[in-house]
Amino acid sequence: MRDQFFEKKSEDTGIIEGRNAVLEAFRAGKTIDRLLILDGCQDGPIQSIKREARKTETIIDFVPKERLDGMSQTGHHQGVIACAAAYAYAEVSDILNAAKEKGEAPFLILLDGIEDPHNLGAIIRTANLAGAHGVIIPKRRAVGLTATVARASAGALNYTPVARVTNLGNTIELLKKEGIWFACADMSAEPMYRANLTGPIGLVIGNEGSGVSRLVREKCDFAVSIPMKGNIDSLNASVAAGVLAFEIVRQRMLQS
Amino acid sequence: MRDQFFEKKSEDTGIIEGRNAVLEAFRAGKTIDRLLILDGCQDGPIQSIKREARKTETIIDFVPKERLDGMSQTGHHQGVIACAAAYAYAEVSDILNAAKEKGEAPFLILLDGIEDPHNLGAIIRTANLAGAHGVIIPKRRAVGLTATVARASAGALNYTPVARVTNLGNTIELLKKEGIWFACADMSAEPMYRANLTGPIGLVIGNEGSGVSRLVREKCDFAVSIPMKGNIDSLNASVAAGVLAFEIVRQRMLQS
Repeated sequence: MRDQFFEKKSEDTGIIEGRNAVLEAFRAGKTIDRLLILDGCQDGPIQSIKREARKTETIIDFVPKERLDGMSQTGHHQGVIACAAAYAYAEVSDILNAAKEKGEAPFLILLDGIEDPHNLGAIIRTANLAGAHGVIIPKRRAVGLTATVARASAGALNYTPVARVTNLGNTIELLKKEGIWFACADMSAEPMYRANLTGPIGLVIGNEGSGVSRLVREKCDFAVSIPMKGNIDSLNASVAAGVLAFEIVRQRMLQS
Repeated sequence: MRDQFFEKKSEDTGIIEGRNAVLEAFRAGKTIDRLLILDGCQDGPIQSIKREARKTETIIDFVPKERLDGMSQTGHHQGVIACAAAYAYAEVSDILNAAKEKGEAPFLILLDGIEDPHNLGAIIRTANLAGAHGVIIPKRRAVGLTATVARASAGALNYTPVARVTNLGNTIELLKKEGIWFACADMSAEPMYRANLTGPIGLVIGNEGSGVSRLVREKCDFAVSIPMKGNIDSLNASVAAGVLAFEIVRQRMLQS
């Protein structure tokens, strides 16, 4: 899955290579999803790029030359490649405001480490159609808003805000103070039909392979599952997100 | 979407090239999803291959040289390429028997032209976990059981039978005589909560871009929709299939 993620990246148009180009991208205020720097590279221009990255809390990965060579489209990466987001990120407060403006109880979808851009795009599409006010993703170990994600969202990225946070657990803590309850998708939990999902809610969906991480799961108020009848372990992550999101829709419709 | 489908094909391991190899594959009883022959090619060996293809009702596409060149992995296609299925297809009767053996009302998922192998894999995965007894796909204008589909099904292909039919409308007609009701996914129809989905049922999901075709829709007994609140047109096809399939699960659980 991880390999696929980086492979897909290079399909996207957001690859910026070389010291000047990357530095200019930061100074122009472009949103950089990920910065890859040649391991051991310490010279002046690289230090300037690192300073800019820290200002914007951009994740830096120090990687071997082969990795940069593999991602490079021009062959002239000079030890640095930045992956620019195809879309701008929103703030978490934008999402809460969207709910307030509509006079609706907040409905957020939080993704704890979705790596496949097609899944992220499909979930943003689901969020839009289920009437969720926004999607929150983490900066680390997750795909960002690449061109592939934008395509897979089928236009939903133009309407549904996506915020990107440093620590999903801390964000949950803060949002609990706003009165939002957090429901963790966990296939060993009680069936979703038995939970009350009608109030202000954050639905937390985990990584494709490993589910919701322990630290994030512990911050949630309760866990919900989809009743499973088959022989295999789990649904596709975007399908699971869709089934849970529309159970929230069903319960809210019943109530109103 | 169509381009993507053929592009993905070549990722799969099931490409068989050259006259002898293709003829042997047919004679060995391999399931060929699709046979591509150079347009205008009429010689003896090609006639033998066509005869074998007709015996097994394999779809033949007559295509320009560029298309074969683009798909060829060896560079020696000799005017013919067969795409072998990575998994064997079941018969529709196998699916009905699976329901009978479990003592359950049949629950089938019919796909009217899913082209993306990731969607087909995700839907087979959903079918398994929702307790559907099998999936039915058409031979034409749809992806078959390629290696990508098998991977995306996360093992579900080992448990959930997939049948492949020449005409989905005719299959629906035949299955109606077995007492199965057909529900067509149509986002302009009444919400799924108002339909009774507890009896023997075939859920019909359409193509990613164009939905369920008119001819198939007209054979269905009724149509169901997912309530949509957003700004864009439709859910991802595998997400829509998941939401509808688990509404069937919910109604069946309530009833029992």
